[in-house]
Amino acid sequence: MRVLYHLPLSPHCRKVRLALAEKRIPFELRLERVWERRPEFLDLNPAGMVPVLEEENGLVLADSYVICEYLDEAYPETPLLGRTHAERAEVRRLVAWFDGKFNDEVTRNLLYEKQFKRMLQRGNPDGPALRAGYANIKGHLEYLGWLAETRSWLAGSSLSLADLTAAAQLSALDYIGDVDWTLSDAAKDWYARIKSRPSFRPILAERISGVAPPEHYDDLDF
Amino acid sequence: MRVLYHLPLSPHCRKVRLALAEKRIPFELRLERVWERRPEFLDLNPAGMVPVLEEENGLVLADSYVICEYLDEAYPETPLLGRTHAERAEVRRLVAWFDGKFNDEVTRNLLYEKQFKRMLQRGNPDGPALRAGYANIKGHLEYLGWLAETRSWLAGSSLSLADLTAAAQLSALDYIGDVDWTLSDAAKDWYARIKSRPSFRPILAERISGVAPPEHYDDLDF
Repeated sequence: MRVLYHLPLSPHCRKVRLALAEKRIPFELRLERVWERRPEFLDLNPAGMVPVLEEENGLVLADSYVICEYLDEAYPETPLLGRTHAERAEVRRLVAWFDGKFNDEVTRNLLYEKQFKRMLQRGNPDGPALRAGYANIKGHLEYLGWLAETRSWLAGSSLSLADLTAAAQLSALDYIGDVDWTLSDAAKDWYARIKSRPSFRPILAERISGVAPPEHYDDLDF
Repeated sequence: MRVLYHLPLSPHCRKVRLALAEKRIPFELRLERVWERRPEFLDLNPAGMVPVLEEENGLVLADSYVICEYLDEAYPETPLLGRTHAERAEVRRLVAWFDGKFNDEVTRNLLYEKQFKRMLQRGNPDGPALRAGYANIKGHLEYLGWLAETRSWLAGSSLSLADLTAAAQLSALDYIGDVDWTLSDAAKDWYARIKSRPSFRPILAERISGVAPPEHYDDLDF
């Protein structure tokens, strides 16, 4: 069976889990405590980071960008990157937006500061970082809401990796109670739609030891 | 003529310039002072970042990941991403390594702190960030040297986007004198080879107002 090495709250891992599930590709999920720097894992990915996908034929794919591009090339049914050059450019632009800009401006400031620092005993959350994260998420939710209002899905008429990437980031932040859904009705409606998909169920059912999500987290009519 | 909006010292812009030049795709280079947040530019890329490529048919591509994947799909001659799944996984893994891990651990700590902060009058370089950057670059040069020693090019037997991405990052740092090439002979030999390619000439010839590169910067036998 193919194996996905992951961490439960990592948005990049969640993105890959959603992509695999949308494509109905079976996989076994394996928790990798990357901070332990397990030698066998470093052999698979010298960068020491998750996600890493190990195919049954031994092919190893490290990094969510690498995995998702590969999945659309190797399993082209249920395409997640679009068909035309323009569609693919728009899907990838939003993937880069949420994996890059959103992750830098929001997720690092909130999820890393509040959750990973505590777990790794690296001290208290940094006040200015938290304030920046809470300030930045507003503009991003507004932009996401505008996209959701003007299109069926974020990148156009079909569900794409753009939706999965954005939902992966937001679901991890929602788990720690850091998404104020009252800021954008359109963003909330889009998230309710994507949250209801079968691909999302295992993610919503997962619990991290010692951290309970808010009540609305796995409520499909939140 | 297609237009590439760029900043001269941005590694992500340099990567795209190298990819275009290796593929012999002509383009006009346009300087975009992203901090001025020019409305016409924000219409092209709401993220407000370079690189952005505007094709002659009006197609706009924002983000170096989006542009490079598009270039290999739209101009498949001189492929830069490899052919088999395994080759493509390895090229992209190293692209993600240098654009992600190297950029976070080294380039942000040195180039942003020393050059962009000064240019944007955002205060002095942060001491701990500089120290982290100088410490981190050592391990990366060692890894790059190991790759260069065991393979013809970084990702395998052919020049690929992995080489262009690594060279783009290192050339920007080399401009500000922050690469100690004595740390790895193999990395230095690889860089001498890539620096000698015609695609590199315009980058080595470019000068940034008020910042002179070290003497070895454009010397092909440094």
